Amino acid sequence: MDMPDPRAAVLSKKANLVERLQAVLPADAVIHEAQEVLAYECDALTAYRCPPLAAVLPSSTEEVAAVLRICHEEGVPVVPRGSGTSLAGGALPTADSVILGVARLTEVLETDYDNRFIRVQAGRTNLSVTGAVEADDFFYAPDPSSQLACAIAGNIGMNSGGAHCLKYGVTTNNLLGVTAVMMDGTVVEIGGAHLDAGGLDLLGLICGSEGQLALVTEATLRILRKPEGARPVLMGYNSSEVAGRVVSEIIKAGILPVAIEFMDRPCIRATEDFAGAGYPDCEALLIVEVEGSDAEIDAQLGVILQIARKHDPVAIRESESAEESARIWLGRKSAFGAMGQINDYMCLDGTIPVDKLPEVLRRTAEMAAGYGLEVANVFHAGDGNMHPLILFDANAPGELEKCEALGADILRLCVEVGGCLTGEHGVGVEKRDLMSDQFAPEDMEAQMRVKDVFDSAWLLNPAKVFPLAVSAARRAA
Amino acid sequence: MDMPDPRAAVLSKKANLVERLQAVLPADAVIHEAQEVLAYECDALTAYRCPPLAAVLPSSTEEVAAVLRICHEEGVPVVPRGSGTSLAGGALPTADSVILGVARLTEVLETDYDNRFIRVQAGRTNLSVTGAVEADDFFYAPDPSSQLACAIAGNIGMNSGGAHCLKYGVTTNNLLGVTAVMMDGTVVEIGGAHLDAGGLDLLGLICGSEGQLALVTEATLRILRKPEGARPVLMGYNSSEVAGRVVSEIIKAGILPVAIEFMDRPCIRATEDFAGAGYPDCEALLIVEVEGSDAEIDAQLGVILQIARKHDPVAIRESESAEESARIWLGRKSAFGAMGQINDYMCLDGTIPVDKLPEVLRRTAEMAAGYGLEVANVFHAGDGNMHPLILFDANAPGELEKCEALGADILRLCVEVGGCLTGEHGVGVEKRDLMSDQFAPEDMEAQMRVKDVFDSAWLLNPAKVFPLAVSAARRAA
Repeated sequence: MDMPDPRAAVLSKKANLVERLQAVLPADAVIHEAQEVLAYECDALTAYRCPPLAAVLPSSTEEVAAVLRICHEEGVPVVPRGSGTSLAGGALPTADSVILGVARLTEVLETDYDNRFIRVQAGRTNLSVTGAVEADDFFYAPDPSSQLACAIAGNIGMNSGGAHCLKYGVTTNNLLGVTAVMMDGTVVEIGGAHLDAGGLDLLGLICGSEGQLALVTEATLRILRKPEGARPVLMGYNSSEVAGRVVSEIIKAGILPVAIEFMDRPCIRATEDFAGAGYPDCEALLIVEVEGSDAEIDAQLGVILQIARKHDPVAIRESESAEESARIWLGRKSAFGAMGQINDYMCLDGTIPVDKLPEVLRRTAEMAAGYGLEVANVFHAGDGNMHPLILFDANAPGELEKCEALGADILRLCVEVGGCLTGEHGVGVEKRDLMSDQFAPEDMEAQMRVKDVFDSAWLLNPAKVFPLAVSAARRAA
Repeated sequence: MDMPDPRAAVLSKKANLVERLQAVLPADAVIHEAQEVLAYECDALTAYRCPPLAAVLPSSTEEVAAVLRICHEEGVPVVPRGSGTSLAGGALPTADSVILGVARLTEVLETDYDNRFIRVQAGRTNLSVTGAVEADDFFYAPDPSSQLACAIAGNIGMNSGGAHCLKYGVTTNNLLGVTAVMMDGTVVEIGGAHLDAGGLDLLGLICGSEGQLALVTEATLRILRKPEGARPVLMGYNSSEVAGRVVSEIIKAGILPVAIEFMDRPCIRATEDFAGAGYPDCEALLIVEVEGSDAEIDAQLGVILQIARKHDPVAIRESESAEESARIWLGRKSAFGAMGQINDYMCLDGTIPVDKLPEVLRRTAEMAAGYGLEVANVFHAGDGNMHPLILFDANAPGELEKCEALGADILRLCVEVGGCLTGEHGVGVEKRDLMSDQFAPEDMEAQMRVKDVFDSAWLLNPAKVFPLAVSAARRAA
């Protein structure tokens, strides 16, 4: 008796799928040759790679719906991909999946200054949303570091933040509505053009759901009027603990700066060598930026400087010109690049209560010493979004494993002090096994049951967010 | 053969339930005598009344859990009640239900100024949350008109707003976490003390879910530093359309006042007669309030007055003192009372895009004329939250029915121009039949399936929000 060849079955399944996809999309929108799909084998978490079965690049909501309908009928998992900048493996394919890229969905559909919103296709990059309204003096507030490249679709999936989110909130606070396609191809409108839509807050569910509930094709975003001006002040301290206390006291004083950025000594040194921004030599450096008219800026900086001076600063530098402001920001903006020049590093993304900053910085350093590794810190201090960079040598055997173990310990510490595993990068594949440290089995069950409602066959980005063992029964179904 | 007496069966079921409730609560916390349960037969939507089977007043999360566990086992519906100020019948009992009142859950559990939050039991009144932190110069922003009486639990259920929500957002933008009890008695923690918690945004689902998903017993709320000062300006126009345009232009100029309140002629007249606030005689009056330091206030009012003067105002009155500010607000705050003195009225609560204000005001007046009724308008114009008051004579036969029909037409108009049925009062029983005008059957099905996840037996506030015919199969299950 002949045994069936399992490889032949897979190949024939793929051929059938590609044929069906080609029937609903232009020829160049279906990528299926082995050499070509390699371009989609990973995102910015390059340690994990896996080429997908195929990748599609639809140009409209209707094309997205047609693709999802086919994949739903064929039982093929779909992995949504924005611009592929995820640091958590949010767009990592599985071998049996189709990558659905939104790169061709880039149109501005509507701008409405009276009601302060813009409606765009979800593949548009974050920065080009502001680009579409800045001539009229408006802007879109969330500003992830990757804003030149990252897509609004990915921002919505991960509920992205950025340096400005202390004042303006993260994506969920600036998202008014979406057009989305359910896994079975149904097109739905969720939210609208107001802050408060009717019905259950399904929009809140979509935002931060890491592409597991529906595929967002259009988004209505809140836009804001540009402030008249902004001015940063730089302050250096000889202890991270003291710098942490300064952050707490600024928040407590009721001042809401646009940004409070924090860098520690390893980071300051690396960026000085790299960018020469003229940073002082100290243990901890804060960049605090406030916005408004000159009078407002003066008033806010007055309070901030009073607090800063009480704590025995090594240096305080108030910007007196646009050039000086740019130079103050230069170091911060080069920090990741600078660290990359001198070390391999792993970038974490936990959040903690602001008043726990000193404790977390101290215990992180202790834990790193225990592993014989060094950690550099550069992060959004105002809202407690930490980005510890674990420095290591990728070529030394065993270092990556030590680095991952330390990373897990640091994120567990974030959860222990009342924070959470991810501020803006998402869980993806990177942190799925740590979910059990933050959530009880009942909590994860509740979240998975909500996914059941939207995607009962678990075909949308299925192998993410939850520990594989926890979601196994559903993914097999 | 003896037929069973159905009344006897109900009475014995009630007796058994009361006995079980008395076993887990203090004697005075279980209200079951016919005379006593009458106090719970309605909320502020007094046109609908129905005494419940019993009412309970637990004093802790554990007592709430014990009550829900019993009701779950007995299959008895539970209707949560904050302070009973709902204008939409959110706390209206059904005859077979137990009212679960949170009036004894009033403690402040924690205040944390470093991280800007307060944790309270959910029965605490809105105003007394601010009361707990105002000595330290902080406040809780959402401020429904009923803030002296209404409970945080009800604010969360209805996602309440208030005059300040233009600047500070509604409840969902100021709620960080809750302790809640599921219908089966399981206690869950959702969210935390940060703006951005891990996992799916279940907190967003809870907020505005009208007590249909879980019973909130504790809430962590964002608190803000009090602004240095605030100043209102009053402006009168001879056309609602022009006043609407002024509102649009202020928003478009990028100014975000704390409040933009709108009153039309019928409302201005009634409040002048009642409160003598010195309002000008005109078609439409705006009260615009800005906050900040004197310099910030001057700068913002400068832009606002420039816009205001361009549109040929009948009157502009800038407040020069605290007394004058109080007088400007006096009329607005007395508006509902004043209208009640001269008419019966029905207060609606739809939202619309701000730039649709002139159109909606015009068409509302036309529709009212068609019914031979008058409508007075007093509302939060800045965020498009309309509160048309339909004036009628409750003693004239047929007037209430005409009034309800006009109300439904006005809310349909709100949906038609891109708004929604309810801004801050909720759907409750009042607007459940209109849900079909806003949502397609698939939309309602999605919302009901989410309720299934939290409350599979549909025992929590079951006869609300969805048209009865739409939810019938589930409620019977």
